[in-house]
Amino acid sequence: MNEETIKALLEEVKSGACSPEQALGQLRELPFEDLGFARLDHHRGLRTGQSEVIFCQGKQPEQIISILKHLGAKSQNVLATRLVPDHAERILQHFPNAQYDPLARCLLFHPLEEPSIPGKILIMTAGTADLPVAREAWITARYMGHEAETIYDVGVAGLHRLLAQRDSMDSAEVLIVVAGMEGALASVVGGLVDQPVIAVPTSVGYGAHFQGLAALLSMLNSCASGVGVVNIDNGFGAASLASTIIRRINKNR
Amino acid sequence: MNEETIKALLEEVKSGACSPEQALGQLRELPFEDLGFARLDHHRGLRTGQSEVIFCQGKQPEQIISILKHLGAKSQNVLATRLVPDHAERILQHFPNAQYDPLARCLLFHPLEEPSIPGKILIMTAGTADLPVAREAWITARYMGHEAETIYDVGVAGLHRLLAQRDSMDSAEVLIVVAGMEGALASVVGGLVDQPVIAVPTSVGYGAHFQGLAALLSMLNSCASGVGVVNIDNGFGAASLASTIIRRINKNR
Amino acid sequence: MNEETIKALLEEVKSGACSPEQALGQLRELPFEDLGFARLDHHRGLRTGQSEVIFCQGKQPEQIISILKHLGAKSQNVLATRLVPDHAERILQHFPNAQYDPLARCLLFHPLEEPSIPGKILIMTAGTADLPVAREAWITARYMGHEAETIYDVGVAGLHRLLAQRDSMDSAEVLIVVAGMEGALASVVGGLVDQPVIAVPTSVGYGAHFQGLAALLSMLNSCASGVGVVNIDNGFGAASLASTIIRRINKNR
Amino acid sequence: MNEETIKALLEEVKSGACSPEQALGQLRELPFEDLGFARLDHHRGLRTGQSEVIFCQGKQPEQIISILKHLGAKSQNVLATRLVPDHAERILQHFPNAQYDPLARCLLFHPLEEPSIPGKILIMTAGTADLPVAREAWITARYMGHEAETIYDVGVAGLHRLLAQRDSMDSAEVLIVVAGMEGALASVVGGLVDQPVIAVPTSVGYGAHFQGLAALLSMLNSCASGVGVVNIDNGFGAASLASTIIRRINKNR
Amino acid sequence: MNEETIKALLEEVKSGACSPEQALGQLRELPFEDLGFARLDHHRGLRTGQSEVIFCQGKQPEQIISILKHLGAKSQNVLATRLVPDHAERILQHFPNAQYDPLARCLLFHPLEEPSIPGKILIMTAGTADLPVAREAWITARYMGHEAETIYDVGVAGLHRLLAQRDSMDSAEVLIVVAGMEGALASVVGGLVDQPVIAVPTSVGYGAHFQGLAALLSMLNSCASGVGVVNIDNGFGAASLASTIIRRINKNR
Amino acid sequence: MNEETIKALLEEVKSGACSPEQALGQLRELPFEDLGFARLDHHRGLRTGQSEVIFCQGKQPEQIISILKHLGAKSQNVLATRLVPDHAERILQHFPNAQYDPLARCLLFHPLEEPSIPGKILIMTAGTADLPVAREAWITARYMGHEAETIYDVGVAGLHRLLAQRDSMDSAEVLIVVAGMEGALASVVGGLVDQPVIAVPTSVGYGAHFQGLAALLSMLNSCASGVGVVNIDNGFGAASLASTIIRRINKNR
Amino acid sequence: MNEETIKALLEEVKSGACSPEQALGQLRELPFEDLGFARLDHHRGLRTGQSEVIFCQGKQPEQIISILKHLGAKSQNVLATRLVPDHAERILQHFPNAQYDPLARCLLFHPLEEPSIPGKILIMTAGTADLPVAREAWITARYMGHEAETIYDVGVAGLHRLLAQRDSMDSAEVLIVVAGMEGALASVVGGLVDQPVIAVPTSVGYGAHFQGLAALLSMLNSCASGVGVVNIDNGFGAASLASTIIRRINKNR
Amino acid sequence: MNEETIKALLEEVKSGACSPEQALGQLRELPFEDLGFARLDHHRGLRTGQSEVIFCQGKQPEQIISILKHLGAKSQNVLATRLVPDHAERILQHFPNAQYDPLARCLLFHPLEEPSIPGKILIMTAGTADLPVAREAWITARYMGHEAETIYDVGVAGLHRLLAQRDSMDSAEVLIVVAGMEGALASVVGGLVDQPVIAVPTSVGYGAHFQGLAALLSMLNSCASGVGVVNIDNGFGAASLASTIIRRINKNR
Repeated sequence: MNEETIKALLEEVKSGACSPEQALGQLRELPFEDLGFARLDHHRGLRTGQSEVIFCQGKQPEQIISILKHLGAKSQNVLATRLVPDHAERILQHFPNAQYDPLARCLLFHPLEEPSIPGKILIMTAGTADLPVAREAWITARYMGHEAETIYDVGVAGLHRLLAQRDSMDSAEVLIVVAGMEGALASVVGGLVDQPVIAVPTSVGYGAHFQGLAALLSMLNSCASGVGVVNIDNGFGAASLASTIIRRINKNR
Repeated sequence: MNEETIKALLEEVKSGACSPEQALGQLRELPFEDLGFARLDHHRGLRTGQSEVIFCQGKQPEQIISILKHLGAKSQNVLATRLVPDHAERILQHFPNAQYDPLARCLLFHPLEEPSIPGKILIMTAGTADLPVAREAWITARYMGHEAETIYDVGVAGLHRLLAQRDSMDSAEVLIVVAGMEGALASVVGGLVDQPVIAVPTSVGYGAHFQGLAALLSMLNSCASGVGVVNIDNGFGAASLASTIIRRINKNR
Repeated sequence: MNEETIKALLEEVKSGACSPEQALGQLRELPFEDLGFARLDHHRGLRTGQSEVIFCQGKQPEQIISILKHLGAKSQNVLATRLVPDHAERILQHFPNAQYDPLARCLLFHPLEEPSIPGKILIMTAGTADLPVAREAWITARYMGHEAETIYDVGVAGLHRLLAQRDSMDSAEVLIVVAGMEGALASVVGGLVDQPVIAVPTSVGYGAHFQGLAALLSMLNSCASGVGVVNIDNGFGAASLASTIIRRINKNR
Repeated sequence: MNEETIKALLEEVKSGACSPEQALGQLRELPFEDLGFARLDHHRGLRTGQSEVIFCQGKQPEQIISILKHLGAKSQNVLATRLVPDHAERILQHFPNAQYDPLARCLLFHPLEEPSIPGKILIMTAGTADLPVAREAWITARYMGHEAETIYDVGVAGLHRLLAQRDSMDSAEVLIVVAGMEGALASVVGGLVDQPVIAVPTSVGYGAHFQGLAALLSMLNSCASGVGVVNIDNGFGAASLASTIIRRINKNR
Repeated sequence: MNEETIKALLEEVKSGACSPEQALGQLRELPFEDLGFARLDHHRGLRTGQSEVIFCQGKQPEQIISILKHLGAKSQNVLATRLVPDHAERILQHFPNAQYDPLARCLLFHPLEEPSIPGKILIMTAGTADLPVAREAWITARYMGHEAETIYDVGVAGLHRLLAQRDSMDSAEVLIVVAGMEGALASVVGGLVDQPVIAVPTSVGYGAHFQGLAALLSMLNSCASGVGVVNIDNGFGAASLASTIIRRINKNR
Repeated sequence: MNEETIKALLEEVKSGACSPEQALGQLRELPFEDLGFARLDHHRGLRTGQSEVIFCQGKQPEQIISILKHLGAKSQNVLATRLVPDHAERILQHFPNAQYDPLARCLLFHPLEEPSIPGKILIMTAGTADLPVAREAWITARYMGHEAETIYDVGVAGLHRLLAQRDSMDSAEVLIVVAGMEGALASVVGGLVDQPVIAVPTSVGYGAHFQGLAALLSMLNSCASGVGVVNIDNGFGAASLASTIIRRINKNR
Repeated sequence: MNEETIKALLEEVKSGACSPEQALGQLRELPFEDLGFARLDHHRGLRTGQSEVIFCQGKQPEQIISILKHLGAKSQNVLATRLVPDHAERILQHFPNAQYDPLARCLLFHPLEEPSIPGKILIMTAGTADLPVAREAWITARYMGHEAETIYDVGVAGLHRLLAQRDSMDSAEVLIVVAGMEGALASVVGGLVDQPVIAVPTSVGYGAHFQGLAALLSMLNSCASGVGVVNIDNGFGAASLASTIIRRINKNR
Repeated sequence: MNEETIKALLEEVKSGACSPEQALGQLRELPFEDLGFARLDHHRGLRTGQSEVIFCQGKQPEQIISILKHLGAKSQNVLATRLVPDHAERILQHFPNAQYDPLARCLLFHPLEEPSIPGKILIMTAGTADLPVAREAWITARYMGHEAETIYDVGVAGLHRLLAQRDSMDSAEVLIVVAGMEGALASVVGGLVDQPVIAVPTSVGYGAHFQGLAALLSMLNSCASGVGVVNIDNGFGAASLASTIIRRINKNR
């Protein structure tokens, strides 16, 4: 429903093929579908350049199933994120071919295809406990068509482990840094590379970590520039942002 | 001081042109200069792809002058940010040709040149009071060689003002959204475009705004994807991140 | 026990129909009933214009049953809110005709009657996960005699979904906006309408949402005017406030 | 620019009086004026039912003067809020007939007219130090055409002072409760009346008051229903919300 | 081990009945017993005027049993607070005559005796959900020998319920006010009486209550004077403080 | 205006000496005086047992002067607290005989009289920087007629300084402990004495002290029982609470 | 991989025993082993002087087992901390000779050996509920080869219990103070000794303790000097720091 | 006043050279001097091994002068910290030979002597703005007799600057890391060395730095072990802790 279609509509009004009342109605109608409790936005992919994703936290299994059914009829694949194992089990009974990744808490309708969009996203974690968030980012990136590489457990307390990854870092278009504790990895990586760095604080920690606040504040105050931050544990959001950057790169190729 | 130069050095050792002791010394010596209280990093531009910038907050005028003098001898232009008017006045006495922008609290040694790097950065603000932060972002972007456009006062309480900017938004490579109060502009813009959005919460607000916390949390929790957040009032950081993205685009052109 | 009754009492004292001691006693006695652990306030409806509602959180099932029994003897219907399923089950054993809504966590003694008070309350949610809070607001509004409409999943990341609801918004007397995440819907709706907007932040979110704090701060800092905020997840409170407004409208009709 | 005008425009297209290109242009153009740093929204009054108000905090005096000049040419009166004395002085040099209220930190172009809209707004404060906020609310209410009454210093530590105001409370359509310290006045008033209560926490307090947080949390957790909360010290917002309610009452009269 | 006993000891040294070495040893030895993981302080009652109480939170059942056994051998009665039902069950197997109060989560070795110390402690709660904390305070007060009365559910949203308790309030030596939500009861009671008021914020609430923070801040900022605050949910602490006050009164009788 | 006077009034109604209308009027009228911006409560002393005190923070000098003039006409002495030096200077021009204490920021109309109420209040501070708060407590205590002693700089880092004050501590009826930093003095004193301890956290500290939060939380979590806490820097409140306790002791003598 | 080895490598390059390409490769390769999800750092002991420790929180049992297997092949003993009982059970099935301490939630492969490093670490707790943290510190200290003594339940509310431990305190090289509640023990001990004091706040407490925040802030604001603080409940970190100090002492012996 | 002196006293009692009353008096008297508002502790040096230091924040200039005069009479040198320039000026009028360091805000009576205690303290800062805190630490260390070296501006965004300091780091006994922003330097240094690391968060930063909170939390959550944290901006405390460690090393030499 862009300017072209509006202009076409107005031409129809001019020619009498469409009455003003009809045109008014069409201007008001928009391409989403109403399930009562949720509004599916079939054109979001066109509008923001991203495929359909369902954020499952806080939704009842029945609601998720209903949304999936409607989306499944019209789209090729769907990614469901933040899906707890109990709910996944009930949903898999309706979609036995879907695949659930318990570490990332993600569900996919179809297997991931080979990356179709050039430009690597490198996902690095400070520790092993940050894996679930990194995995959510990896699945999201691959689901959106991107090449994605993961490097785990390269926290700053052992700088040599990180510095050994120089080649992988240099060959990426965007880097996603996933870190809990004091989140220092974002600053150190940000100081080493000249690509965009997306920092994901995680809730990995205890005590004065305050469920991720320490890592979040640390990353927001990074002394390195070129670092953007997403919400705590938001692997999906980091990959989405990385995707917008890489699609932009390819649009300009 | 990259792999190439190290390899060249090692070849010299092999050929005897350089003794192991000398090579060791060179491997240890790095291209920074020591002022006692600050270490100038002349090669940072090469390493992270950014020009030299001085963050003046917390530094004494004498220290800033000393740093500027050393940098001035070796670089084309320098950007000083977070420079309060009192300190700017004292610094201008030493560098009468420099230009101080009191709104952005930035100082430049030389006038801004015409943008040399293709790809527009669009900087939008929710309100008029967000201008200082947007201006810091604009100067930074232009200083780094980018094309930058600003649109002020398009907050979500008057959606029609924002929607009228559709063309400007569509023609940008990266959008920077600067907003205080509830920071909702980041989510609304994030839902309208498919380019990367960099959100800058500002400290504009009062009461339960808690010096920018409200806008910061709002942006981190954006229901739109593709949004990266930088520190409160960090116009410089937003432009730096935008710059890394656009330089990446051009590297792949 | 208003001025009229006090004046009548004083007239009785004057005429000798009531001794000063008796009058003093009546002035001190007030129309509530003591259950030991709770004081039922049978006249609250008269005093603040609202029907009887029990807030069940923190109360033992036995206490709730006892309160319900006493209220049941004297009132037409009772609304119990914040009633967890386990407690609801035990209570339904004593009141088999009552109806429990697990989504809203509300229990009613009698079915909801047709709205008797003119003036529509429109309840909008940003996402599907905000439904429980919206449902609590809807039941409360209907229980208090109001016409109530719900529109779900019209968050600001897809503005067209929201703008398509223009007619519903225009036909309401009061709008209740229920939103988690960054809570931006309150500002956007507030900028679109000229009716009172009641904003309900929800605890829907994660990480830097801090159990609803992000949405709460966002709504308190709304750049749109005409917005009042209630506690996080307080669907009941929003409907109560809407009810006071609409009853005021009808009082003046 | 409502449905009527759009339909009229479409009729013109049908009749040929307006070309599709012209219609497209008109649909895109919206009634705001661009000052570069601010966008004046001349039709906001029509859209949200409120008169023009400038929030001056964070704006430079020159910006305020420029905005005022543009507004002054097209509107009857303007209210400037959060204007510090220093800035007010500079602005009064350009608008010598304007009136500045240092307590409320408000400036008006023309004297307040007699209330034109029936329905009293009662503004109560817990203490004397809450006056500036109450005064901002009073000026805003009067500026918007409403009858407004103020009662100061009726905090809950002296209940008899509050209870003596029963008549004033009963005769109001909406009550605004302004309180710092522990903000308990909102709950007590909310329990006494059946009209809508708008609670304004103030930053009056010290220590564990945390600049208004204590009063804010207190009001959000009010045990009385029918209470909506606005931001700390937001007298303007409270009056705006009261205004939407009373205009709603009169629309239905 | 007060000055008297030290002086007596020194007299013994003077007379030769005790050698300097022995005296040194006695001066160093203090009347507590070491269980390895806990140090029982048998003379605390003498020193601070309070009976033995075990705070069970965070202690293993075996540790509690061991402490109880040692205390049981030397003292008349013991009060165990913050004892969860699971642990209580295991402890009752060793002490079948002890009595557990699940509401207050307290355990007593012997039944409560009739109050032996003159001076009533009045314990008031704002709501029914505040009962567990009030009950802990009541048991503590009675265990320490005091007369204690409880009045439940007299929150400020229904002032008449509170004002009807005037006589009970007037006849108390100390008042303990237990309230969650906005905690306003402490201020209102503090303004009505001239006795010491001990305010106990409770974690009863939700959302912006932040587990008792709202009530705590409210009480600390009480506009009424003569109010002291204890920790959230600390019924024991309130009763202990009340006890020190009343014992002080009786000491001076 | 107690039960006695109400009963007398009712007797007059009975006898015809007073008409019901007149009685109604008298019941509604209460003994406070209205200054427009403040309500003086001349009978507060009778009701809560405390003398008149003005909390000056947030009040304009003119308002304070006006309040003082009205009070001065009817009372013996007045205490003004939280009065900044600038305001004090302007007030002293109207009341040249008043005395201002710049350390405590208090002003008195008449010199302090000799203590008239038996029972010593001991005020202890952890450090020298806590003096202003302790001094406010001391003046308040003395103004209310109490004997008050101060011991400064006995923080827990030098236990021997504290333990040397054993006699002073033993001879007090109530102890007020004023401490910033980590506020540990309250716990240590609470463990040493059997009298009521009132803890006053101060804002003395820096960094992670967060303007008194550290000391406040420390005191609320005191491992010693018998400790009540007042707001940060609230020396007045501590003395008021101490006063209610001592007056209670004397009432029972 | 220190300067010596680099110089040796360069000598080999000079002599032709190693080609520049090979040298470059060796300079890049570092002594860690990659498990895919974790990087084992076999030389950490050499680099930072500490033995291998696995922090298990957030790691899956399978990950822990895999890490343990790799480490077990190359090291003498391993310490696993923050291991919950459920996970410990599964791990013990693979390593039946390992020993799990449920109080400290630690697992060891081999029994603790007799201390081999001179210099006692004294670990003191304020209460019995602090034992788990103290136990983690004790096991860590012993695992690292140190002599360690524990003294439990010497909180400041009973100073005599603490002062009786003078000898133990004097004979330690480093003191670790473990305390929840108000954490005052750190300040008192810090004022009594001239050795380094490491303060460990614990999450023992409730209400305004905010999961250890109160004790943490208290310790950071200690009025005694010579106190360093570690994270809440971080017994391991305290012992690690103590170990670095004592190893430093022995290095200089 | 240690065991030896007590025993000697007791011997005197035995021999009759001292009466029990006199002994009691001596046991009670302790070696501090009372100035009314401050208690000088002349023996603190003996007890905790540290020289006399005055923390001036919150103290009036007159109080500081008085304290200095008393100390000056009995001690060799005194260090005054946190002394603002205004107060320093007034104090220098009384002590013209004292030296004030405006960067560190410290004052010394006598020039610093050459270090007398072996063992270097290395003080590193992340940025130039951290200098004042580092300088306070340096002066404190030198005042206490230690060798101290400073390295400024080696933040982690330029790792090569830090790694070039390897030799200085290896030759220190204790390292003090002073950092604002995200405070990551503490973790990186902690991972590189095997000496004790004392981390000092600074308030250098803005926005989500929250006056040092970000750096503080970051350091408390350091993924490197062997790190102890002191309060924000507490350069004095860091040096004091370093001093206790080094004195311990020398005691064992």
